[in-house]
Amino acid sequence: MPKPRLWLQLFERQAGQGLGRREQLCASLREAMRAGELSLDERLPASRVLAADLGLSRVTVEAAYGQLEAEGYLKRAVGRGSFVAISLPRHSARKPRSPGSPSPQLHQGPGLSRRGQRIADGGGCVDPRRPLAFAAGSPDLRAFPLELWRQLSNKRLRTDTSLLGYGDPQGHEDLRSAIAEYLNQSRGLRCRAEQVLVLTSSQQALQLLGAMLLDEGDSVWMEEPGYAGAYTAFAACGAQMQPVPVDSEGMQPQPELPRPRLIYLTPSHQYPCGMSLSLPRRLALLQLAQRESAWIVEDDYDSEFHYEGRPAPALQGLDEQGRVLYIGTFSKALFPSLRLAYLVLPEALVAPLVSARTLHDGHSAQLPQAVTADFIRQGHFAAHLRLMRQLYGERRNVLLEALQPLQSWLCPRPSPGGLQLAATLPPGQEAHWSRAAAAQGVLTPGLSALYRGSSAQDGWLLGFAALTPAEIRAAAHSLQRLQGVKPRPA
Amino acid sequence: MPKPRLWLQLFERQAGQGLGRREQLCASLREAMRAGELSLDERLPASRVLAADLGLSRVTVEAAYGQLEAEGYLKRAVGRGSFVAISLPRHSARKPRSPGSPSPQLHQGPGLSRRGQRIADGGGCVDPRRPLAFAAGSPDLRAFPLELWRQLSNKRLRTDTSLLGYGDPQGHEDLRSAIAEYLNQSRGLRCRAEQVLVLTSSQQALQLLGAMLLDEGDSVWMEEPGYAGAYTAFAACGAQMQPVPVDSEGMQPQPELPRPRLIYLTPSHQYPCGMSLSLPRRLALLQLAQRESAWIVEDDYDSEFHYEGRPAPALQGLDEQGRVLYIGTFSKALFPSLRLAYLVLPEALVAPLVSARTLHDGHSAQLPQAVTADFIRQGHFAAHLRLMRQLYGERRNVLLEALQPLQSWLCPRPSPGGLQLAATLPPGQEAHWSRAAAAQGVLTPGLSALYRGSSAQDGWLLGFAALTPAEIRAAAHSLQRLQGVKPRPA
Repeated sequence: MPKPRLWLQLFERQAGQGLGRREQLCASLREAMRAGELSLDERLPASRVLAADLGLSRVTVEAAYGQLEAEGYLKRAVGRGSFVAISLPRHSARKPRSPGSPSPQLHQGPGLSRRGQRIADGGGCVDPRRPLAFAAGSPDLRAFPLELWRQLSNKRLRTDTSLLGYGDPQGHEDLRSAIAEYLNQSRGLRCRAEQVLVLTSSQQALQLLGAMLLDEGDSVWMEEPGYAGAYTAFAACGAQMQPVPVDSEGMQPQPELPRPRLIYLTPSHQYPCGMSLSLPRRLALLQLAQRESAWIVEDDYDSEFHYEGRPAPALQGLDEQGRVLYIGTFSKALFPSLRLAYLVLPEALVAPLVSARTLHDGHSAQLPQAVTADFIRQGHFAAHLRLMRQLYGERRNVLLEALQPLQSWLCPRPSPGGLQLAATLPPGQEAHWSRAAAAQGVLTPGLSALYRGSSAQDGWLLGFAALTPAEIRAAAHSLQRLQGVKPRPA
Repeated sequence: MPKPRLWLQLFERQAGQGLGRREQLCASLREAMRAGELSLDERLPASRVLAADLGLSRVTVEAAYGQLEAEGYLKRAVGRGSFVAISLPRHSARKPRSPGSPSPQLHQGPGLSRRGQRIADGGGCVDPRRPLAFAAGSPDLRAFPLELWRQLSNKRLRTDTSLLGYGDPQGHEDLRSAIAEYLNQSRGLRCRAEQVLVLTSSQQALQLLGAMLLDEGDSVWMEEPGYAGAYTAFAACGAQMQPVPVDSEGMQPQPELPRPRLIYLTPSHQYPCGMSLSLPRRLALLQLAQRESAWIVEDDYDSEFHYEGRPAPALQGLDEQGRVLYIGTFSKALFPSLRLAYLVLPEALVAPLVSARTLHDGHSAQLPQAVTADFIRQGHFAAHLRLMRQLYGERRNVLLEALQPLQSWLCPRPSPGGLQLAATLPPGQEAHWSRAAAAQGVLTPGLSALYRGSSAQDGWLLGFAALTPAEIRAAAHSLQRLQGVKPRPA
């Protein structure tokens, strides 16, 4: 039996953890058994003795012994005392491991599944977290009408605490109606609220569609260059990814490619190049999908922000066969951490996708859904989009102007909309100049990484929407200095 | 060329959709082409003529023609006029389909993947949405300190609008630290914030673990009876599910079963039976996992609510080999629509699981994470749990008392904690009496559906935590009336 001093040490080891004294004693005894300082059948001090040693009340010690007996750590016999009931595997280390120290046992562990290994090897696709020039894809959070949002939120909570509870896996009815109405009016879809599935993000939509529609080895056609998040999601399902080149009319189908089971498209505003899929191509792809019995995923990720006229209506509105699965998101139109996006599905896919959503993560938080529905219905969404279109359109013009002195080197592609601008560099220069820009504190997300086939185009995808004109000019001036161009005064 | 009256009809068809006049004209022309009322190469009226016919300004008609030309619907030649540029597939129906009408083309569609078909066949596992006696699993939303929550939320938003932006896929750092501290102190885990992965729900944790760790045909041991959400998640990955019987000490491993790749356990409070996994069984299962190179998933879904002493510390705290993957959730301790749960992982699994999370749905909403961290750190979480333990403990006692007159028929199992109580019925009676109770407006979730092996136990899983004592007594009296027992006065 350990000496009183040792008992005290054990007991004090657990101090400062915010535990009550009884719990502190239980934890110290469990710890002593794990550490091998108390072993099987060893007798513990009588509660009266231990209480005196540790300055505790006897009731506390009795309660701790009782709890450990109930848990199976001790056995107690009236008149004989309390004994360690169990032999525990020895601790490899008493304290939690320090940060960064390796975890030696784990390479002997059971490991990952084949699918898991594919996902681990593919890595994640991490979104930018701060408005740093020229990180791509973020809206301007500073321009969001937060006070109004807070008021709508407080109002909903005051009237409906059921919003704290479990929600409909397909999405809050108010939001599904508001989305369907918005899409029919503004994006040329033909859909009903019953076809809308509310999700947390476009990425979740891609992932659920991949899981539900793709078997290993199925062929997926992707625009080349194209959106990495879609590539990763479909590739993780074991699909054979087929890069299909784009020209000024969008995806250029190639007759020699294996027939697709799914075609991924960004028809309104090709990611990352910016062109719109032409009407003849739209019709050709719809016919091809019909002929080959393929699904078309239409990712309409930022058509809310079109600066030259209105964007072409969605492909979904042309689809007579229920082949087009439409993805939209509020991450850019409202804010990314809202975690709301949606799928518009042909009727036959609604029930299977709702099952999958239930299985994957239940449902979306209800309050943000209800507030978003109110925001749309009360006209705030349309007003916010109008304002943001104007703001972002001006910023795009500021960026184009600021890049003009560099145009023989860094050549912006035509871009009628979106939150970022693709610009090409001479072959072989992307990596070098990206590092040089980063050294000046300027991020320049690369274009070449978005190519999966053989011939990548060097260039950058420059985000501008979240940046003020002064921030845009300052970052552009940094690029000018790299090239030895004398910056014009801001 | 259609007659003026027809043009007017076309135009008016699109009225009342909240569109501007230019958009209304574009939409009506697109619709006319889709419907075959305008065909390839047909000449449109001059803008001046059409403007006069429709009572629009010529500028509006010119703008509409210009947009349709840009979209590829029209071609225009100076001095010759505007012509339909495209032959569209004919509409099968002009209007969106009415609710409930079948969608004839879809059975010819490409269909689901094999995994998708498994998920669709399995159906979802829908959580209860209202505090209806005796729906299981919901906390009492009426008792949640919503005003305090709103204050914390407003405070965070005032000081940090970056919470609207993209977040860390692993979870907000404040929340990961708060979770690690809480688990080390209160649940006997040994972990650091770096091992915590914040998710939207336990279901997401189960689903991600299934995807990352299980190959098709891998064997998964599950408690029998056991949690349907876990069964569905692992079965959807193609795992071979092995029901392992439980007795009063929890899961009883069977030597003749195929060796497991993963063992799913609810050690603190077996779902649905309520017992705690004994210490000898804990040690035996850890050894078995080590020997067979298997993962153990510890689902600690409601140990916050233990009414007789404290729950046994988590199995994770006994694990020396990095085999235990611990799942916790705030759905019951705070509220379900918060959409926050977490995994505690061995270090080697953190990066792969973060990749998977990124791929599946990016990250969790940041504001709720930050507010939950503040709620924990400022002591509100501990205080809320104390209050709820008292409240739910009293309600459990009310339920036990109210069921006493029925005990020869409906026999409660010992249940030291949780939000629901398992009670057994004589063999073969569950379906009949569930229907009878439902006819009285009382929900009685069945026990037998939680068995996957041969011999199911009839009974009910009666939720009590979200119900007031009066609601509990009223529902119990309804059950008494079914049995012809004279209800005692409430």
